[in-house]
Amino acid sequence: MNNFTLHLATKVVFGQGQIAQLPKLIPADARVLITYGGGSIKRNGVLDQVHRALEGYQLFEFGGIEPNPAYETLMKAVEAVHNNKVDYLLAVGGGSVLDGTKFIAAAAKYAGDTWDIISSGGRKVADALPIGSVLTLPATGSEMNSGAVISRRETGDKQAFHSPYVLPRFAILDPLTTYTLPPRQVANGVVDAFIHTVEQYLTYPVDAKVQDRFAEGLLLTLIEEGPKALKEPENYAVRANIMWSATMALNGLIGAGVPQDWATHMLGHELTAMHGLDHAQTLAIVLPSMLRARKAQKWEKLLQYAERVWGIDTGTEDERIEAAIKATEKFFQQMGAPTRLSDYGLDGSTIPALVKKLEEHGMTQLGERRDVTLEESRKIYEAAR
Amino acid sequence: MNNFTLHLATKVVFGQGQIAQLPKLIPADARVLITYGGGSIKRNGVLDQVHRALEGYQLFEFGGIEPNPAYETLMKAVEAVHNNKVDYLLAVGGGSVLDGTKFIAAAAKYAGDTWDIISSGGRKVADALPIGSVLTLPATGSEMNSGAVISRRETGDKQAFHSPYVLPRFAILDPLTTYTLPPRQVANGVVDAFIHTVEQYLTYPVDAKVQDRFAEGLLLTLIEEGPKALKEPENYAVRANIMWSATMALNGLIGAGVPQDWATHMLGHELTAMHGLDHAQTLAIVLPSMLRARKAQKWEKLLQYAERVWGIDTGTEDERIEAAIKATEKFFQQMGAPTRLSDYGLDGSTIPALVKKLEEHGMTQLGERRDVTLEESRKIYEAAR
Repeated sequence: MNNFTLHLATKVVFGQGQIAQLPKLIPADARVLITYGGGSIKRNGVLDQVHRALEGYQLFEFGGIEPNPAYETLMKAVEAVHNNKVDYLLAVGGGSVLDGTKFIAAAAKYAGDTWDIISSGGRKVADALPIGSVLTLPATGSEMNSGAVISRRETGDKQAFHSPYVLPRFAILDPLTTYTLPPRQVANGVVDAFIHTVEQYLTYPVDAKVQDRFAEGLLLTLIEEGPKALKEPENYAVRANIMWSATMALNGLIGAGVPQDWATHMLGHELTAMHGLDHAQTLAIVLPSMLRARKAQKWEKLLQYAERVWGIDTGTEDERIEAAIKATEKFFQQMGAPTRLSDYGLDGSTIPALVKKLEEHGMTQLGERRDVTLEESRKIYEAAR
Repeated sequence: MNNFTLHLATKVVFGQGQIAQLPKLIPADARVLITYGGGSIKRNGVLDQVHRALEGYQLFEFGGIEPNPAYETLMKAVEAVHNNKVDYLLAVGGGSVLDGTKFIAAAAKYAGDTWDIISSGGRKVADALPIGSVLTLPATGSEMNSGAVISRRETGDKQAFHSPYVLPRFAILDPLTTYTLPPRQVANGVVDAFIHTVEQYLTYPVDAKVQDRFAEGLLLTLIEEGPKALKEPENYAVRANIMWSATMALNGLIGAGVPQDWATHMLGHELTAMHGLDHAQTLAIVLPSMLRARKAQKWEKLLQYAERVWGIDTGTEDERIEAAIKATEKFFQQMGAPTRLSDYGLDGSTIPALVKKLEEHGMTQLGERRDVTLEESRKIYEAAR
């Protein structure tokens, strides 16, 4: 096991009806900006619940944070923060609202050019407004981690930043809020959480048995519950298990003390930036090709994955690994997430441009061993056509 | 899954050499009382490492906190806190030092009769000194939770209290510090962590799949690594896996949103208080009898335990359950922890007195369904003779 520091400081308040706990979590004299996305929280009653819980608070609202939240949009929210002397941010939504709110929190306290926050990967952040959240879309784990991915429309960039200052103080996770999600978002969430887990698990062994077992536990849960969430949208236990899995998949716990990959994410980010595919859709396309291309480097963990997650323990080692990758593809397809570029009408002609973007973003040595070169990335995109 | 609140706020700094991080974790102007136990940290160099890391700090020391830490001893430490205007406590040791230090932290800030802290179960605690820790004995999970068990020699009592105020700010977990532990303490630690997990897992199903998988992952890791720790005391990976398992077994994570039992602990506490047996020794005696007595109530989870933890999937349900309990006993014995009162020369003649103590301490309705009566507890003690 590698050395690590882990600080899971976000208070989790989980379960039906927990939005009512908000007054215990936000200081009574706070001036709160509620941030949200396209407005589904107005239709499904979540925003009403928040308002009822926070009666008597000074509340402001900023809606319209889009999927793959845009720097340009978020800077308008920063203006709203300053104009209204806001001192607490409450993100109500999914990963994009959370990520966007993290940027708003840091930018509101940042003196220089706010794009530095992102281009420095968060290293220049030295303060931020406190953030709380009501999660309505289990997927990214953003509610319990200190990372965010921000896009810049102007340049077609999509980049991550991390800072302990933007870690949410609390996260309310009420599975009931997820009943009305469209099937595509449910599928995206499950696939996203699954691949977050894989990025921290399918690398090379460092004899970290707890982390491995926990990761396998999340994968097994997502495999069991994901399809059920599509078939029985109002099954509380299923929704609760998926919600808790998604948070656990990216709060730092399973990645503590182990190598991490994230190459699939980097290749996926470029697909979203260039073609507008959903984040999870891009991951479902890239991962199978990535695993096949990196088979030799991930051999031992792929065998362990085949056996413990998919129960595959017959055939040659190579056959078992291929069967596990096939099972993974089938699972994504079962969730409604295709695994080929061609499924989205993309013929691969933009692959050189995608590789160019990777280069521009410094993504020339990816993966847990930093040996996924641009040429290797090109082959992986090609194999995913 | 049941509703829950989970706040894992302790910062974990894990791995070899991490004691050197202390200056990043304790304010430079703090007046620090280092608390410890019987003095093994002087012999194995851990105290020297702490002193080297904290050069330039105002340091004080209080040693001699015993296993099952005594109220009487701890009150002397509270005096040392006041006399030296201590404002930070650094516990260096195992669960007893941690637990004792939590009491010191609360008592130092408590105006009334300090025994109230314990008799109120912690509810009267409204403030405490900050605590950090360097863990040297993986077992109790106290380094990342807000509970403590304190004994009072005068009355033969052993009771728990809980308060968020005494949650350690940080925990340094360096597996190297555990190399020199006596085998009995290694065994106790593994058995203790195992039974902590069981108390939160072998209850009744609430369809909490992540919690179940995580609990099973900890049990499997302890089963695989425990015996190796006895055979290869300087195997770093083994020590690291056990250390991380023990912390995870009782930091709130696997118990969030699920029913919890703890009857085995309550019956065990009385055995320690009356006969001076080690905490883990008492648990290894009580658990098998408890599981047999509560078979009907724990049926479904016992079957799941048999299959997923011990790989037992043939025979009638009753046979599978009995085989799993036998495997558990064998595991404890393999760790050097006997599973009978008679193994410690106890003939059962004190059972009426033990039951009387349970009654005095209000332990009349134990277990996840509060249906383990005094009569049931008596039978469980009897079955463990």
